[in-house]
Amino acid sequence: MTTQLEQEIASQPAHIAALLAREAPRIREICAGLPDFDYALIAARGSSDHAAMYAKYVWAALGGRPVALAAPSLHTLYDAPPRMAGALVVGISQSGQSPDIVAVLAEAQRQGRPTLAITNDGASPLAAVADAVVELGVGPERSVAATKTYTAELAVIAAFAATFSGDARRLEELQRLPDALAATLAQADAVARRAERYRYMDRCVVIGRGYNSATAFELALKLKELTYVMAIPYSSADFRHGPIATIGVGAPALLVMPAGRAFDDMLDLARELRRLGAELLVISDQAQALDLATTPLPLATSVAEWLSPLTAALPGQTLALHLALAKGLDPDAPRAIQKVTRTL
Amino acid sequence: MTTQLEQEIASQPAHIAALLAREAPRIREICAGLPDFDYALIAARGSSDHAAMYAKYVWAALGGRPVALAAPSLHTLYDAPPRMAGALVVGISQSGQSPDIVAVLAEAQRQGRPTLAITNDGASPLAAVADAVVELGVGPERSVAATKTYTAELAVIAAFAATFSGDARRLEELQRLPDALAATLAQADAVARRAERYRYMDRCVVIGRGYNSATAFELALKLKELTYVMAIPYSSADFRHGPIATIGVGAPALLVMPAGRAFDDMLDLARELRRLGAELLVISDQAQALDLATTPLPLATSVAEWLSPLTAALPGQTLALHLALAKGLDPDAPRAIQKVTRTL
Repeated sequence: MTTQLEQEIASQPAHIAALLAREAPRIREICAGLPDFDYALIAARGSSDHAAMYAKYVWAALGGRPVALAAPSLHTLYDAPPRMAGALVVGISQSGQSPDIVAVLAEAQRQGRPTLAITNDGASPLAAVADAVVELGVGPERSVAATKTYTAELAVIAAFAATFSGDARRLEELQRLPDALAATLAQADAVARRAERYRYMDRCVVIGRGYNSATAFELALKLKELTYVMAIPYSSADFRHGPIATIGVGAPALLVMPAGRAFDDMLDLARELRRLGAELLVISDQAQALDLATTPLPLATSVAEWLSPLTAALPGQTLALHLALAKGLDPDAPRAIQKVTRTL
Repeated sequence: MTTQLEQEIASQPAHIAALLAREAPRIREICAGLPDFDYALIAARGSSDHAAMYAKYVWAALGGRPVALAAPSLHTLYDAPPRMAGALVVGISQSGQSPDIVAVLAEAQRQGRPTLAITNDGASPLAAVADAVVELGVGPERSVAATKTYTAELAVIAAFAATFSGDARRLEELQRLPDALAATLAQADAVARRAERYRYMDRCVVIGRGYNSATAFELALKLKELTYVMAIPYSSADFRHGPIATIGVGAPALLVMPAGRAFDDMLDLARELRRLGAELLVISDQAQALDLATTPLPLATSVAEWLSPLTAALPGQTLALHLALAKGLDPDAPRAIQKVTRTL
């Protein structure tokens, strides 16, 4: 018997292929109808907040627009919503239920700003309050830990970035993505075989840079939710500004370092971590990175760096799943959390 | 013999009193000369990034302006600086040396946007590239872990918030702050006596909300730098969206929960953590919060919530100092990090 989580992880290439085919025209239409905006203000929590981190890089790098991550408590706890002049206001939520995220978009409506919801539930309160809605359409996610809704959110954000860029090559790169996802998942058995080594790991760091800062944060959350490992995420730059002091001999570090502009910086860090005696788990498509690892987690094929957070998430999701199984935990129902979290 | 770190922690009330007296007129003058802006884009790393998190709440709540935290790698690694139309661009750095932070302000200058540097070194590259500079003026910080420069950055940010608000009461509240800092530090002996209990703690979570999300992130960094404890920071809302699954019996949780709008939410979380069997360390001025703690870390006097990140940082700094001493570590020179970190 396989778990829901395993099925949901495996479903991602097909869901993303269908999502891109279905929603790309709609995303073009939404972009064509948007008024001019100087920056995007995104409200999101949990895995969706990591999708927002991806938007922070990819909407800026491909679309030239800075992204601010909203502080929803300004709206809910402090009754002090900021002025939103110049902003496109975006809510990202699998369930579309969290009142704090809905409150940010409702305020944007009051201020006459354009709003966009990205959600798996087109009938949710979040969808109801937005001018434009993109539905993930990946079906109900039954496992508490988000996997297919996370990568679907990334795919929607990537499609907006490609459209913002006005560069046809970006859309072509995006269309090749589902095949790369399928090829990477086909290597999941190798990941599963390595999980047992980490049965008694109780903490680790997870590090990425640039586009893959988001991947580091999301994979750390998967490890926390599914295996209760204290996994701490960092960008490589922030990691060097202090937290590297925590690394001693044997300390495990999961590095997300596909080919691209951030690779050399990550490679420097990987070598420094080896000098400090750390044990490396490396997600990469580059041999010189995988060769530094005790546990290489290879990406089957290379994709453009801006799309690598989608492929790079998969070996990490698979690792978290199999580590949960190695610990005798139920991956579908972690303790103390529910599928829909309503925060104010 | 006391350590540099202890002296620097103790120096904070006097430094902040002098800083506020010296720089308040200059901050008024800078604000009066600023062109209109829709949002602030802040570039910072490490402790200064936590100061930027404070700005994200206090500039919005008191000044009505959203804050975006810059992604410096867009400028350095990706050669893809975003458009900055509508932005006030701010760099915060103790040393003013990190090339990535300087690059963000240099790009803002090229785009004709107003720039502000907050730094302890008025002769630094960051200061050289900014239209306006506020110097912390707290003297050289000799300990690697930032303490007095962190609270000085918060004080400057608070002074800008008070000026943005145009509300004279805010400036009065700010002037009473140094006395509250001194009163809180006077209770540091009680904190020191509790540190030994955590000699063999190897991980913990640190949680705050709203204004004190920044405090949680900063105190987690102090614990990591000074004691090598894997301290993971969260806002209470993000913590409920998954990471609460890591909490089992005996798990230590440091909660930052002074009186204010975020208090009830934090109190709910504190009670939930007690039900899960967690051991609580609580920084608060409220008896009902301190009573839930195994280790209460009391704030001597209450300050307005928007200023509480300054007082609430002090017991946490003191705890990290004494825990380092209890572990036989040198608080002035943690392994693997230097005072000035130059990231690209």
